[in-house]
Amino acid sequence: MEKVEDIVWKKGTSVSELVSQLGRVGFQSVELDRASEVIVKMKRDNARVFFSFTSNMVTSGLRGFFAQLIKLSMVNVIVTTVGGIEEDIMKAMGEKFLVGRFRSDDVALHEKGMNRVGNLLIPNDSYIKFEGSMKHILDKLYKKKKKYTVSDLLREIGLTLDDENSILYQAARNNVPIFCPAITDGAFGFHLFMFQQDHPDFTLDVIRDFSNLLGTSSHDEKKGIIALGGGVSKHHAILGLMIHGGADYAVYMTTAREVSGSMSAATTDEAKSWGKIKDNSDAATVNGDVSILFPLAMMKALDVLSDEGVI
Amino acid sequence: MEKVEDIVWKKGTSVSELVSQLGRVGFQSVELDRASEVIVKMKRDNARVFFSFTSNMVTSGLRGFFAQLIKLSMVNVIVTTVGGIEEDIMKAMGEKFLVGRFRSDDVALHEKGMNRVGNLLIPNDSYIKFEGSMKHILDKLYKKKKKYTVSDLLREIGLTLDDENSILYQAARNNVPIFCPAITDGAFGFHLFMFQQDHPDFTLDVIRDFSNLLGTSSHDEKKGIIALGGGVSKHHAILGLMIHGGADYAVYMTTAREVSGSMSAATTDEAKSWGKIKDNSDAATVNGDVSILFPLAMMKALDVLSDEGVI
Amino acid sequence: MEKVEDIVWKKGTSVSELVSQLGRVGFQSVELDRASEVIVKMKRDNARVFFSFTSNMVTSGLRGFFAQLIKLSMVNVIVTTVGGIEEDIMKAMGEKFLVGRFRSDDVALHEKGMNRVGNLLIPNDSYIKFEGSMKHILDKLYKKKKKYTVSDLLREIGLTLDDENSILYQAARNNVPIFCPAITDGAFGFHLFMFQQDHPDFTLDVIRDFSNLLGTSSHDEKKGIIALGGGVSKHHAILGLMIHGGADYAVYMTTAREVSGSMSAATTDEAKSWGKIKDNSDAATVNGDVSILFPLAMMKALDVLSDEGVI
Amino acid sequence: MEKVEDIVWKKGTSVSELVSQLGRVGFQSVELDRASEVIVKMKRDNARVFFSFTSNMVTSGLRGFFAQLIKLSMVNVIVTTVGGIEEDIMKAMGEKFLVGRFRSDDVALHEKGMNRVGNLLIPNDSYIKFEGSMKHILDKLYKKKKKYTVSDLLREIGLTLDDENSILYQAARNNVPIFCPAITDGAFGFHLFMFQQDHPDFTLDVIRDFSNLLGTSSHDEKKGIIALGGGVSKHHAILGLMIHGGADYAVYMTTAREVSGSMSAATTDEAKSWGKIKDNSDAATVNGDVSILFPLAMMKALDVLSDEGVI
Repeated sequence: MEKVEDIVWKKGTSVSELVSQLGRVGFQSVELDRASEVIVKMKRDNARVFFSFTSNMVTSGLRGFFAQLIKLSMVNVIVTTVGGIEEDIMKAMGEKFLVGRFRSDDVALHEKGMNRVGNLLIPNDSYIKFEGSMKHILDKLYKKKKKYTVSDLLREIGLTLDDENSILYQAARNNVPIFCPAITDGAFGFHLFMFQQDHPDFTLDVIRDFSNLLGTSSHDEKKGIIALGGGVSKHHAILGLMIHGGADYAVYMTTAREVSGSMSAATTDEAKSWGKIKDNSDAATVNGDVSILFPLAMMKALDVLSDEGVI
Repeated sequence: MEKVEDIVWKKGTSVSELVSQLGRVGFQSVELDRASEVIVKMKRDNARVFFSFTSNMVTSGLRGFFAQLIKLSMVNVIVTTVGGIEEDIMKAMGEKFLVGRFRSDDVALHEKGMNRVGNLLIPNDSYIKFEGSMKHILDKLYKKKKKYTVSDLLREIGLTLDDENSILYQAARNNVPIFCPAITDGAFGFHLFMFQQDHPDFTLDVIRDFSNLLGTSSHDEKKGIIALGGGVSKHHAILGLMIHGGADYAVYMTTAREVSGSMSAATTDEAKSWGKIKDNSDAATVNGDVSILFPLAMMKALDVLSDEGVI
Repeated sequence: MEKVEDIVWKKGTSVSELVSQLGRVGFQSVELDRASEVIVKMKRDNARVFFSFTSNMVTSGLRGFFAQLIKLSMVNVIVTTVGGIEEDIMKAMGEKFLVGRFRSDDVALHEKGMNRVGNLLIPNDSYIKFEGSMKHILDKLYKKKKKYTVSDLLREIGLTLDDENSILYQAARNNVPIFCPAITDGAFGFHLFMFQQDHPDFTLDVIRDFSNLLGTSSHDEKKGIIALGGGVSKHHAILGLMIHGGADYAVYMTTAREVSGSMSAATTDEAKSWGKIKDNSDAATVNGDVSILFPLAMMKALDVLSDEGVI
Repeated sequence: MEKVEDIVWKKGTSVSELVSQLGRVGFQSVELDRASEVIVKMKRDNARVFFSFTSNMVTSGLRGFFAQLIKLSMVNVIVTTVGGIEEDIMKAMGEKFLVGRFRSDDVALHEKGMNRVGNLLIPNDSYIKFEGSMKHILDKLYKKKKKYTVSDLLREIGLTLDDENSILYQAARNNVPIFCPAITDGAFGFHLFMFQQDHPDFTLDVIRDFSNLLGTSSHDEKKGIIALGGGVSKHHAILGLMIHGGADYAVYMTTAREVSGSMSAATTDEAKSWGKIKDNSDAATVNGDVSILFPLAMMKALDVLSDEGVI
């Protein structure tokens, strides 16, 4: 077993140095460095990486970082919720979200047309512009064909975007499928519905997207997962792995608590009882806010992999 | 403002008496009693009640209680995730889940064919039997028609079940639609996919289910929501309300923390900034484990409503 | 292993019935019923019961319930923080605290002379009256002797009070010592300091209180602990047990999370590594708000023990 | 209001750069950067800084960092619990703690003489050596005088140590008083008690330590607080500020949740209702694990202050 080591400040310390030192500090700092190492190992081992995140992370400035990870081939399959899809498109169209406060006067915000997500704000205007461009995009796609799977639809949309910091843009150009199992759960769903009212033969085949999910990997291939937050995106990424025999490498980051038995809080240990990740897998669960934890763990991993010439 | 009142034990105290006393104790006990009162008010006001819950609650013994609430007309629209649908069907077929421990040897459980959900266990066998009956049910439904919306499919399945404690059984017989926006996210999805491989013209139209969601209520009607846990089921129930002008009454119960900006943790205050619930709504957010909080708040509400002849 | 059982509402269900049913529901409800059973066992086995709680619980209406438990001989040794001591005295003098809101305008409250503790409010006036009576009480005690241990001082104060719902009142009359290891950490400490300025020979011997702690039990006796919340009161109660060989029965209730390695969140499992509780002890850790969990678990235990003639 | 900005990885990014970027990301990352800025402001304004932390942080590798902060004059008054005092002394004597796992076999650890604190381990041996040196130190101090306040005792002990990474060592040499309101709550207390058995005239005057606390600052001086974790150390640091009119700058970091009304979770907002921090103070509350959050926020502050020549 390793010994606990005191950390000391040295001016200009890099993120990589700090994360390495945190590995000997204690509590979540130890798990954080472990997570960073698991990410490095999955890439060294050339694993297919499933990456899931929740929509609030796309609301935040993590969005461009996620796009960069796709561009760098750090992740190979994405699962997220429709809120994140919508907001990635809004941002690709130039919309700006704002930094607010957790304790706000929500009635006043409503009157100002500001929608709060924790301490961030999304203007109503962004939703209105999104509606306009959705119509335009769906018109274009409908001319190509009438029936899409969700991941195909999202790739087609990604190809219409023009923003290097966009998740959909990079995914479409780097052959990374985006799965979104609850595609109708948001403004996006409502616009699909309105479009279908005018074009009754327009359909999404959600069942057939299972084919695409099956095509993402194989039993023989090494597989890894990075699950940020919980919910349906985490669950679906795990399902994608399970149908291929489970993950060899797993990193979960969440604020949810195991004590209520929710999927969001389920640890990499619980996952072993299901065969979701293999019994002998390399796994780390870090508790805390992804907006801080993930850049730390991933930036150290990127520094290491860059030094090794893996990326 | 009310005064804090000391509670004292009296032998044989009823749940209703205790919850009322808790309203003057402090911290979450106060919010719990407030939640109970909001439930009473929404029923007195004859509101349409949207009810969302996560699948782990169906794993637990809350499942029969939810079925009873449908039977008693306490809730009018249900939104949940596919894990809960699967497990309700398994239980309706006689499968039994077990009470285990949070700290378990998960590798040993995997070898025994036991899947852990917090401190509960689902045997692999239950999934195998579920697969068999899904084939049987889908065969039957396919003979009726080739194309379903999700809520229609779930009603048809409910009609095939024979268990008064089943959520699907009661929903089908009491005209309560069940929405499940991520229907493919689980074993259920995999079985739909296998069925579609053999019956390529079998499709689910998820977009068209928006019609059904629109049909659940109207702008003019009073509306309430009881959201247990978070994730896509909470979000979709709120979406259903939002397209009808937002809720007049809202009760949220969750263990998630507001601090990370997730939907699961979003409070009834944050909801006001979106117009998800009305500015002047009657609302309560209770923090804690639903397996304890919900029976308390709801049982007091049922006692009160029964006394008043509302149920 | 037991099976999960569906619960159903029956009008007028008692707290005891519900808690028993919760034992088969899942997640924290299972742990709650387990905690109730451990309390029953410790009393049947005639164990010495160490009882710790934090001051916010005395702010709340749990205070009179705690006093009742002392009167019923359910607990034998108390450890708490000085805030709780102060507020128990204020309440014994007739002061009333109020039920407010978590989200409040704290600057406005400050201007109104209201001090917020979560969703409860303590008026400045109560502190002012407390100051007056402290002077009076200390004058009286000083006439008896100049040097006290903390637990002796608190007993003497308890004897001056006249309120059956007071923790200090019941403890003093039922031979239950109250330990308060950080006696100066509050207004109480400031008043002790002011008194000592005028009476330089007045001292508290905190070290000698260890004698009293040693006198609370013995290695041979069966011992139990009920620790509500965390911090120094939980730690000190455990210390009291450890010097007597550790606990045979343990119930911890807390909202704190194990993930940061704090004492407040330490589980009954971690305690075993220290010998704080015995390896083969009967132990339960319940996560959640004590204002709801504790009345439930304890009221069922009291009903059972009353039926059995133990209390 | 500021706009949300996407972050991107650049090889070798420094901690300071990353924390600044996090200020535009969202959720706790925003609060983290705000906390860093409040620390910079309190130092620029030459405020007296009260610094509180819990003992588990001294178990961890944060201990040497805390010592460095004292040496750099970043903090002026310390409040902590006795567990941290003990462990700082053990480490100063050369004892090493180990990095373990949260999920451990605690009965096996107990048999091996390993005491678990989250994912860290303290060997029994360290406690045995601590006992020996405590006797030695107390013998020496007793020759000087018979009666100490707690902060005086801790300074005297600090002067006997020989370890630059020790908190007590640096505090004693840099005129930073250490307050420990529950000095008897641990092995330290037991050793004091055993010593007093042999030297009945040896006493600690905890009341008189209020004088020292009063001497730490004044109403006119600018004052700040950095409270890591909760409990009695946080509460006592705030008490120290309150008797001087409250803080002008405040940073709280904790994993505790506001929802249960505990001191540990109390925010800088709640503090305003008490006058604990001034209505117009510069304040930040960050939720999460201090082992990660604090090095990030403080290291950026140190880089900035070093550039400005403040340190």
